[in-house]
Amino acid sequence: MEQIISYHTLLSFTENIFKKIGCSEADAAMAARALIAADLRGIDSHGVARLGGYVRLWEAKRVNAQPAIKIVHETPSTAVVDGDSGLGLVVAPFAMQTAISKAKNVGTGWVSVSNSNHFGIAGYHAMMALEHDMIGIAMTNASALVAPTFSIERMLGTNPICVAIPAGNEPAFVADLATTTAANGKLEILQRKSLHAPTGWIQDKDGNASTNPHELKGGGALLPLGGDREHGSHKGYALGAVVDIFSAVLSGANYGPWVPPFPAYVPMPDNQPGKGIGHFFGAMRIDAFRPAADFKLHMDQWIRRFRAAKPVPGQERVLIPGDPEREAEAERLNKGIPLLNAVTENLKELGERFDVRFPMSDV
Amino acid sequence: MEQIISYHTLLSFTENIFKKIGCSEADAAMAARALIAADLRGIDSHGVARLGGYVRLWEAKRVNAQPAIKIVHETPSTAVVDGDSGLGLVVAPFAMQTAISKAKNVGTGWVSVSNSNHFGIAGYHAMMALEHDMIGIAMTNASALVAPTFSIERMLGTNPICVAIPAGNEPAFVADLATTTAANGKLEILQRKSLHAPTGWIQDKDGNASTNPHELKGGGALLPLGGDREHGSHKGYALGAVVDIFSAVLSGANYGPWVPPFPAYVPMPDNQPGKGIGHFFGAMRIDAFRPAADFKLHMDQWIRRFRAAKPVPGQERVLIPGDPEREAEAERLNKGIPLLNAVTENLKELGERFDVRFPMSDV
Repeated sequence: MEQIISYHTLLSFTENIFKKIGCSEADAAMAARALIAADLRGIDSHGVARLGGYVRLWEAKRVNAQPAIKIVHETPSTAVVDGDSGLGLVVAPFAMQTAISKAKNVGTGWVSVSNSNHFGIAGYHAMMALEHDMIGIAMTNASALVAPTFSIERMLGTNPICVAIPAGNEPAFVADLATTTAANGKLEILQRKSLHAPTGWIQDKDGNASTNPHELKGGGALLPLGGDREHGSHKGYALGAVVDIFSAVLSGANYGPWVPPFPAYVPMPDNQPGKGIGHFFGAMRIDAFRPAADFKLHMDQWIRRFRAAKPVPGQERVLIPGDPEREAEAERLNKGIPLLNAVTENLKELGERFDVRFPMSDV
Repeated sequence: MEQIISYHTLLSFTENIFKKIGCSEADAAMAARALIAADLRGIDSHGVARLGGYVRLWEAKRVNAQPAIKIVHETPSTAVVDGDSGLGLVVAPFAMQTAISKAKNVGTGWVSVSNSNHFGIAGYHAMMALEHDMIGIAMTNASALVAPTFSIERMLGTNPICVAIPAGNEPAFVADLATTTAANGKLEILQRKSLHAPTGWIQDKDGNASTNPHELKGGGALLPLGGDREHGSHKGYALGAVVDIFSAVLSGANYGPWVPPFPAYVPMPDNQPGKGIGHFFGAMRIDAFRPAADFKLHMDQWIRRFRAAKPVPGQERVLIPGDPEREAEAERLNKGIPLLNAVTENLKELGERFDVRFPMSDV
């Protein structure tokens, strides 16, 4: 059961909630755009469904609604940003903008961030670079749900990487991927539908392969991209580890099993080595390598050639990274965003509490 | 059946062969070090076993033994290098050195390379950054053996990524991975032993899952990391695509199905859009983010905590990326490098032809 809400209604509701917890007008607008970008692009697990979770982090004083975000170290092409415990949804755009500014000056910009919180989808931040004819890169660490190859313990988050690359007449190439076989949001869907997970997604608390989507509650773990050693899980583990190190060891944030959990009721890990959650951003000016027109011509050809690859029987076409999300965005901007009833109920409660009306349906 | 040859003997033989095809003293020494680094680190498929292949590319006039490698475009943090059809084993160190120099000046350096050839293992080049207290990144495209998700056609190479990160007292973190479930070298081992491949490694010419390691000869393909859509192959495909675009669309090299093949007898693809093979390199100065001593302290803690993670039953320990290769290197430096008889025979023939003695065994 679900209801359809227009993008602008959802955006405005979210913005108002962020204002009610004390965000400035500008920060509330920015945080709402970043958060609802997930719903718009079809990544429902990372969008408005988490709004209540962000509010609970603010209540637990783990989110500072009026952060003094600042650059604490820099060179012409790099910076470290301290997010002052702000919403990642606000800290990340500041840091990405810093990367873009540095790329304008010296060709590329690279920013590692400490003392932040969850930033929504990596794609929103990486795509900020596109309008400047730059390649954008965004990654973040997250609390430990993933067992490295041969490990029983959960040591890494789902640690996503996004790379957004502009094209000419074709839409941009946007690869946005968790470094696990499957994101946690996909497990939640299986849990709601009482379905089994494919092998290679999860292991139980003793490190055995499992197909039970509830396994994480009992001490099980998500698996790195690859699933098991024979299928290359050591590569998914290595990629998730690189995200963790770039995001947190370079910035002075928490890493590995010390990353703060998203649910406010879960206690913070003991003996944390750093501050908050870490992110990493990059921006590369295309014309720092070759004339932008030449690059775009070849990028268009790249996209068209891959899209024209002969598909396997039963599949209509070969996709370009970013196609599904862009198509979801076009449809949802037009027809509205479907919300599960459980999500609508949570938003109504949130609205009542903060005296912000949540519409039953407006499409 | 195999023979053991010392590292220094193998290095000296390889260096002499490169001199015989016309490389300068310095280039021959550099190319030999880069190539034999593969044998030393246990990646036998990419080392001296390919020496004859490099010589055949030179005979086919696809490798220029005396290239005028040059920077054709640059900004303070970026460059594009034209390899003038040189050995990738020589072009890549030049480009990585350029990235390191730029990082010294402005914090990071990023170099995209066109008009090159195969560069051996990515790890050798990325690790050049370590002695400068920098993070090193290396990637390359390669001829199309990999089918994107839902594609019958082979569109991408095994397109490896290496990220090398310095630590303090612990050895460096070195993640060096093909963006496929399994590298082609592993298939070759199964072919020689007449064994089946696990599912998820390859598909047949019609796009069906297959376990026949000879499938590529009949028009089959390697699969992206993940194996199939349900296990995240669209992520492996996206990563391989990013490597292709950074290496070749940014530099003006060939990309996708147009990348030159390694075997000299395979004709070049028609209508190539660029020049040669492409690579991409990055160097980031640690102290462009935070004091190197602070970073190394936390990097050591990261490594020790992951190494101490509780292993699954039947496994001794959780590995840090780079552990197996570093252990192979220590053992092979000490005890020598094992070569299959077929490889030894090829090297003897090569030695006779160029009047360079190849020792039967010297350990």
